[in-house]
Amino acid sequence: MGLDSLKEIGASALTNLVTTFIFLLAFAFLRIQPANDRVYFSKWYVLGQRSSPAKNRTKNSSVGKFVNLNLCSYFTVFNWMPKALMMREKELVEHAGFDSFAFLRIYILGLKIFFPITILVLLVLIPVNVYHGTLLKLQKEIVFSNIDKLSISNVDAGSKLLWVHLLLEYLLTMWTCFCLYKEYDSIASLRLQFQASQHRRADQFTVLVRNFPHITGGTISKCVDDYFQRNHPDHYLGHQAVYNANKFAKLVKKKKKLKNWLDYYCLKFERNPDKRPTIKKRCLGLFGERVDSIESYKERIKELDKKLAAEKEMVLKNPKAVVPVAFVTFDSRWAAAICAQTQQSRNPTRWLTYWAPEPRDVYWKNLAIPFVSLGIRKILMSVAAFALLFFYMIPIAFVQTIANLETLEKYAPFLRPVVEQKVIKSFLQGFLPGLALKIFMCILPKVLMIMSKVEGHFSLSALERRAADLYFYFIVIDVFMGSIVTGTAFEQLKSLLHQPPSQIPSTVGVSIPMKATFFITYIMVDGWSSIASEILRITPLVIYSLKNMFLVKTDRDRAKAMKPPRIKLTDTLPTIQLYFLLGLVYAVVSPILLPFILVSFAFAYLVYRHQIINVYNQKYESAGAFWPHVHTQMVISLLISHILLLGLLSTKKAAYSTPLLLALPLLTFCFHKYCKSRFEPAFRKQSLEEAMDKDIKEKATEPSINLKDYLADAYLHPIFHSIEETEMIDIEDDQSQTDKGSPRSNIVSSPYSSPKYSFDNVFDA
Amino acid sequence: MGLDSLKEIGASALTNLVTTFIFLLAFAFLRIQPANDRVYFSKWYVLGQRSSPAKNRTKNSSVGKFVNLNLCSYFTVFNWMPKALMMREKELVEHAGFDSFAFLRIYILGLKIFFPITILVLLVLIPVNVYHGTLLKLQKEIVFSNIDKLSISNVDAGSKLLWVHLLLEYLLTMWTCFCLYKEYDSIASLRLQFQASQHRRADQFTVLVRNFPHITGGTISKCVDDYFQRNHPDHYLGHQAVYNANKFAKLVKKKKKLKNWLDYYCLKFERNPDKRPTIKKRCLGLFGERVDSIESYKERIKELDKKLAAEKEMVLKNPKAVVPVAFVTFDSRWAAAICAQTQQSRNPTRWLTYWAPEPRDVYWKNLAIPFVSLGIRKILMSVAAFALLFFYMIPIAFVQTIANLETLEKYAPFLRPVVEQKVIKSFLQGFLPGLALKIFMCILPKVLMIMSKVEGHFSLSALERRAADLYFYFIVIDVFMGSIVTGTAFEQLKSLLHQPPSQIPSTVGVSIPMKATFFITYIMVDGWSSIASEILRITPLVIYSLKNMFLVKTDRDRAKAMKPPRIKLTDTLPTIQLYFLLGLVYAVVSPILLPFILVSFAFAYLVYRHQIINVYNQKYESAGAFWPHVHTQMVISLLISHILLLGLLSTKKAAYSTPLLLALPLLTFCFHKYCKSRFEPAFRKQSLEEAMDKDIKEKATEPSINLKDYLADAYLHPIFHSIEETEMIDIEDDQSQTDKGSPRSNIVSSPYSSPKYSFDNVFDA
Repeated sequence: MGLDSLKEIGASALTNLVTTFIFLLAFAFLRIQPANDRVYFSKWYVLGQRSSPAKNRTKNSSVGKFVNLNLCSYFTVFNWMPKALMMREKELVEHAGFDSFAFLRIYILGLKIFFPITILVLLVLIPVNVYHGTLLKLQKEIVFSNIDKLSISNVDAGSKLLWVHLLLEYLLTMWTCFCLYKEYDSIASLRLQFQASQHRRADQFTVLVRNFPHITGGTISKCVDDYFQRNHPDHYLGHQAVYNANKFAKLVKKKKKLKNWLDYYCLKFERNPDKRPTIKKRCLGLFGERVDSIESYKERIKELDKKLAAEKEMVLKNPKAVVPVAFVTFDSRWAAAICAQTQQSRNPTRWLTYWAPEPRDVYWKNLAIPFVSLGIRKILMSVAAFALLFFYMIPIAFVQTIANLETLEKYAPFLRPVVEQKVIKSFLQGFLPGLALKIFMCILPKVLMIMSKVEGHFSLSALERRAADLYFYFIVIDVFMGSIVTGTAFEQLKSLLHQPPSQIPSTVGVSIPMKATFFITYIMVDGWSSIASEILRITPLVIYSLKNMFLVKTDRDRAKAMKPPRIKLTDTLPTIQLYFLLGLVYAVVSPILLPFILVSFAFAYLVYRHQIINVYNQKYESAGAFWPHVHTQMVISLLISHILLLGLLSTKKAAYSTPLLLALPLLTFCFHKYCKSRFEPAFRKQSLEEAMDKDIKEKATEPSINLKDYLADAYLHPIFHSIEETEMIDIEDDQSQTDKGSPRSNIVSSPYSSPKYSFDNVFDA
Repeated sequence: MGLDSLKEIGASALTNLVTTFIFLLAFAFLRIQPANDRVYFSKWYVLGQRSSPAKNRTKNSSVGKFVNLNLCSYFTVFNWMPKALMMREKELVEHAGFDSFAFLRIYILGLKIFFPITILVLLVLIPVNVYHGTLLKLQKEIVFSNIDKLSISNVDAGSKLLWVHLLLEYLLTMWTCFCLYKEYDSIASLRLQFQASQHRRADQFTVLVRNFPHITGGTISKCVDDYFQRNHPDHYLGHQAVYNANKFAKLVKKKKKLKNWLDYYCLKFERNPDKRPTIKKRCLGLFGERVDSIESYKERIKELDKKLAAEKEMVLKNPKAVVPVAFVTFDSRWAAAICAQTQQSRNPTRWLTYWAPEPRDVYWKNLAIPFVSLGIRKILMSVAAFALLFFYMIPIAFVQTIANLETLEKYAPFLRPVVEQKVIKSFLQGFLPGLALKIFMCILPKVLMIMSKVEGHFSLSALERRAADLYFYFIVIDVFMGSIVTGTAFEQLKSLLHQPPSQIPSTVGVSIPMKATFFITYIMVDGWSSIASEILRITPLVIYSLKNMFLVKTDRDRAKAMKPPRIKLTDTLPTIQLYFLLGLVYAVVSPILLPFILVSFAFAYLVYRHQIINVYNQKYESAGAFWPHVHTQMVISLLISHILLLGLLSTKKAAYSTPLLLALPLLTFCFHKYCKSRFEPAFRKQSLEEAMDKDIKEKATEPSINLKDYLADAYLHPIFHSIEETEMIDIEDDQSQTDKGSPRSNIVSSPYSSPKYSFDNVFDA
């Protein structure tokens, strides 16, 4: 049975524990080296609360600049762990934003759900399963021989003990729903409080309008003005047209690249003034005449500047560059909330209004997509996603087969001498299957992100949520179901269609307990080693060091070299969901899996909390808009666990359980419906009560604010920033575009200038 | 093969044609009798454009009052047919309302879709099917022997001729979608024009608000005022609280009943003054002491009057009788449209707003349902509908089996001598199966209507739409699928679950052509005889005559005796959909079915047009709000036809057709999605543009209107009408409650006082 013994799980656990420990040790060591300070504390640099250690050190020894010579600090290498936990929730939201806070809450939710369940299930089910299989005299052998002995497989068909499993599934479902409800409630009300406590922001007054009718005479601008002055006469303030600057943005990107090369060659020349660097002229510098590289790049940049100026002129002057999309601003939050939620035009596909994303969240590129093509894009991408979903299974199945050593030896007998060596065998068995899957899953989010972009969502947050949703379906169908079904027999996939529908759950149900070992190794690789490598940040560290070596001259360059990362929701959210799915499915099937999941949650919470405090810097603030997706996906996992248990028990001749188990998904579905109607609008719509409250409060505190000036340039397209400024934005994403972009930012206080929210009463309650 | 020969279809057709003709003749004869005038021209009485013929006749002979003595009129008995077609669309809308107009358009749509298809399919497919089966020398025999020879069953498996069927299915789908799109477009824009042309109406300014939070101090009324004055400060006018008067309404109903009996006994006494009528006191007049009936009823009415007064007092004084629902009015259509479409409260389950139905459309009883129970009711009713859906199949299957003569003879051999007689046999075969099904289907709508009421919709139109939706699912699953599957083998139903999913379409597909004969007889019974009986109006005629004999004293009584009916959308809409379904499914399978459907559509159009002009009187005006349902159901029918053809062709070894046929439902689904987003909002929401236009126009024409007075009592609960008035409403539903209900209707022009809309430009375009 391949990996089916506890001993081999032990070996795998050892491998992963060692890897994890090495990673952590490496991190602890690298973290305190001054040279890496920007890599491991990038968030603090962004906030301006930490500057290059070189300046701080009083002994300005050249070695001390790069290596930590303070021996004391080497004895406290693990003190980052308590430090990460020390920051209070309130401070955390102020420090890192609500998105990061909500993200961490998912792990807490996982611990809340699974901690009591793990204890209950281990105490009740393991004895039940073990007792039933064999007698106590063989106990010792059992524990160390086969993991299946601890699972439901060990219980005979038709046994009365299956009632225990059934009862536990009910308890599990009720507890999970209870936790989900409480959490949704808490996140929703915290979100409202967070939004209420926020300072004035441009997006509160702004609505994104799409698909104006075609105008024959007059400009788009006039048409928008006329329309909203007629239909919102008392509240309309103005609008910001959107320009199609995609080509311009491409040129800017190209210029940036050229400039980097120029810097590199200048530095090279500086260090070695005797020899002017040269390059070949054509084909990536491989062929052609050899020329002076500094001069060549300077020339090319000059040429590009001309092109840029021409393109800018074109965009500004040509009325065709204005796309039929506008950011319409109103004089109050109330009016904006109204406009975003109502149908404007007789023709319901015209003058579509959306709640505007905040300026940093806008994905400008997609605003230029014509509205007509959006529907077609959606259909095409659905078909593409469907195809990808089912063709991606093939390589995964292949890897699963390879990773099974016996199969490998069978098809490639020449590898036997290598594979049979004990160390290699353990390594392969403990590490390879999970790793292979992980690599496949790493490429996927990028593909899915591209698909979401093609689909045409116009905010970064929506793009990420969409990609995360798709990724979740991949994880459920390809990783989870794929591993379960293909692992035993890949051919069964095809046969599923030709099986009676009543047979499918039991087909899948039977193979679930057999796959417990595989998922345990997967959890160890993905939940332990990968998380540890996340904190080590090897790739950014290497890139930063290289840049430091070849490009950095000034402090500003150094800041440029280390772009603070952000939580990749597209990757992380669905991965967490896989743990929830595994936990819910295996809780009553193979309870031994749960402790591994618990450890993953706790460890990941620790690591991500540290990273969020010290490293990550979110590009936008969506105030936890992803939570409804998180909730829905957990409910889906719960439903899957019900159906699979139903299938499993149907093979155990427990017919009495069928109606009881059929009731569970129905009740869960009702629960979901209720939660959706109760909480989801808080994440999708702005209530008039809320908007009015804020309006009234603001009128009382700042009666004389000139909103028109305040809002005038909030949604200015990046085209209006000079090229230099555009570059700045790319470097320091953290600060809003408007901060620097707005030519009037000196006069009017910018909507994003105050990163501190008055957030005192929220988390004390 | 039971009914499988054209000869027997002929017999059935003859039976039904004769029945239909008898009905029509009876109608033509009865219609011109003065005594029945109110039965066949009730709409005109409602409009006040016709009065009792007794008055009109100059020769006041007592016979002439009841029997038409004008012999000339007997020669023009069928002139109602051209008359029914003469009224123009514009006049029809003015005369009968937009709902009736939209209802007739469904039949027109049916003719539009199926007329070209029938011709094409008959010309192309019948030769193809016949040619392929046998040779031309047997042609005569074929035509008269078996209907299967004309269907796709006659084409060999693997034949190249199946391409023709495939191509025709594509053409059919495209043509149907095209017609559906055009019709949806036309209905949607006509609806907008109709609404724009309507005079000021209370519902344009009103929003129904549900589920206020629980109030500890203060009244509900104050709470509503405070909330809307805060959140809609510039537009809120006032609100109308809703009282729970369900008990009161029951008492009123009881009193009405007693009064009827009193009238009956008074009349009896009048005609026979010697003998005072008596009744026994207890148990429906069967037991107990014998008393004078007039005195007894008078006494009971008096008692009831006391109870009524007490109950009225209670409702008005007791704050608990006020339910947490209110009709909130605004100063403009714009503000009402806004309030109805936006989320009011932080908690999305509080202060829910809906576009208010017009006052006559409100189903007051359901407004008293507590909001919390609505969700539970919905779930329970869904479960109940599901159960009903699958248990209703059993009696239908039983009837189907009985209706098959051979089965009948087999199980009840003693019936053989009777059944074998030719006349009885033909009658049974031609009439019985359809009739049995029809009777079953007649009880159902009542059950479904009760279920919708329990579900808690608060307008009559919504109730009818919901019941019609449920009925449609019944028709698809029980009538259509039930007939197809159970007819061949009832046991297959159970086995469907245990069959591979890829097998189900082909199992069903195979039995489709075999069922063509059954459906032809069904269409003849339901589409010909039933429609003819609809125009005859036997039941109302009998009831009216009885009432005339026993109750009527004055003209007002006579008006009371004939309550004008309305189109029962719950029954009729899904029945029409069955024809569409049959037509779409059988078009390429058994084309011989199509002419029967065409005749039904044409005949039903004629009959319903006549009835709408002369008899029906709609209780409310929803401006065609049922059209999205009609459209969706047709698309569902189209999808079913695709899937069934797929199954059928898969048994014909036409593997090449599978991908082509799979594309069809996908494309149809995309079409539906598009139509939904393009047209449905016009039926569900009020656009701000529209509302603003009307507001501006009104301000220009009537600048000084006092809206507050106008709206004050529009949504007054019936409790406020005196008992006499309440009765009046029951009699003359046609005129709005507000007309008489509002105590101020003399001062302010009532919202419903002008039945004529300025509707001149709409249908000329």
